[in-house]
Amino acid sequence: MKDIEFIVELDKMKSIIRQTSLIGKDQREDDAQHSWHIAVMAMVLGEYSNEKIDLCKVIKMLLVHDLVEIYAGDTFCYDKKGNESKRERELIAADKIFGMLDQDKGKELRALWDEFEEQKTPEALFAASMDRLQPMLNNYYNNGGTWQKFNVAKEDIYKRIAPLKEASNELWNFVEHMIEDAYNKGLIKH
Amino acid sequence: MKDIEFIVELDKMKSIIRQTSLIGKDQREDDAQHSWHIAVMAMVLGEYSNEKIDLCKVIKMLLVHDLVEIYAGDTFCYDKKGNESKRERELIAADKIFGMLDQDKGKELRALWDEFEEQKTPEALFAASMDRLQPMLNNYYNNGGTWQKFNVAKEDIYKRIAPLKEASNELWNFVEHMIEDAYNKGLIKH
Repeated sequence: MKDIEFIVELDKMKSIIRQTSLIGKDQREDDAQHSWHIAVMAMVLGEYSNEKIDLCKVIKMLLVHDLVEIYAGDTFCYDKKGNESKRERELIAADKIFGMLDQDKGKELRALWDEFEEQKTPEALFAASMDRLQPMLNNYYNNGGTWQKFNVAKEDIYKRIAPLKEASNELWNFVEHMIEDAYNKGLIKH
Repeated sequence: MKDIEFIVELDKMKSIIRQTSLIGKDQREDDAQHSWHIAVMAMVLGEYSNEKIDLCKVIKMLLVHDLVEIYAGDTFCYDKKGNESKRERELIAADKIFGMLDQDKGKELRALWDEFEEQKTPEALFAASMDRLQPMLNNYYNNGGTWQKFNVAKEDIYKRIAPLKEASNELWNFVEHMIEDAYNKGLIKH
């Protein structure tokens, strides 16, 4: 059964390690944990979207947005060199992972990934906002986390969280305060 | 912001360790990984439900069904003693975790958990089927996994996966073959 082979392959997401650490722990999170966290975040924060969104689509998008990393690996958002080859590596991975399913089902999941990557619909923008907000929360509560470890500049943090500015005024207001507070506390380099 | 405090608390799900191991790894999975896996499973296997289901509700239910374990811990399904106090411990935990949110939002998530626990709607039955099928797949691909480790009897495995019999004929057919095959290969005790 193709579906089951696909589901078994998904287990590998639990071993794709990201740069972000769990809050208060000396342990880095993986793609499965991250994907779960941001899907629940969408459930809780969806009401703050500026535009009317299909929340179910946002959740599904978030659940599958990192599947390509099973083959392409996690590319750290502030790794400029890694990001040069990211698109190419992930396109090959997308063909492989979504190609494991029957055509209709594979197409449906691939369409969610494509929409997320293109960042044009309100759903894709809101999903990207969740994807970017979660590691920032972890960094904030981990005394700077990867901001500190990799000496990330405040302007690069703002660039990274930019989709949220368009997606939600209310959450943007919160995030701006959080980043400035982190900066003032020395959690972000001066 | 209450929502953010709740989201930060959710990070603890990544440290609630279950008995099931990752496929091919000497590492046990956690609640966040498990919840993500079964939510994607519902997306892929939803079409096999006998009854028409609201797939979005199933996914949301699966994403929050284990939140109580942040305080109540994971109770192994074949642990008879632990299961005697499970309901009581989880009710206290449910008040605590869902009570972190504003009333409307807390009620909405709590209702999903209650519906899952009651096992009366087609959505709850399908969700429980995913919750129970995933560790069985991991056991099957891990040479028996917890079936072996805890000497679980075949009849107890069938009892555990019973919701699937009602939820999906097609998946039941697959699961029955898998359990019998595992038994014949000696992955389940004789």
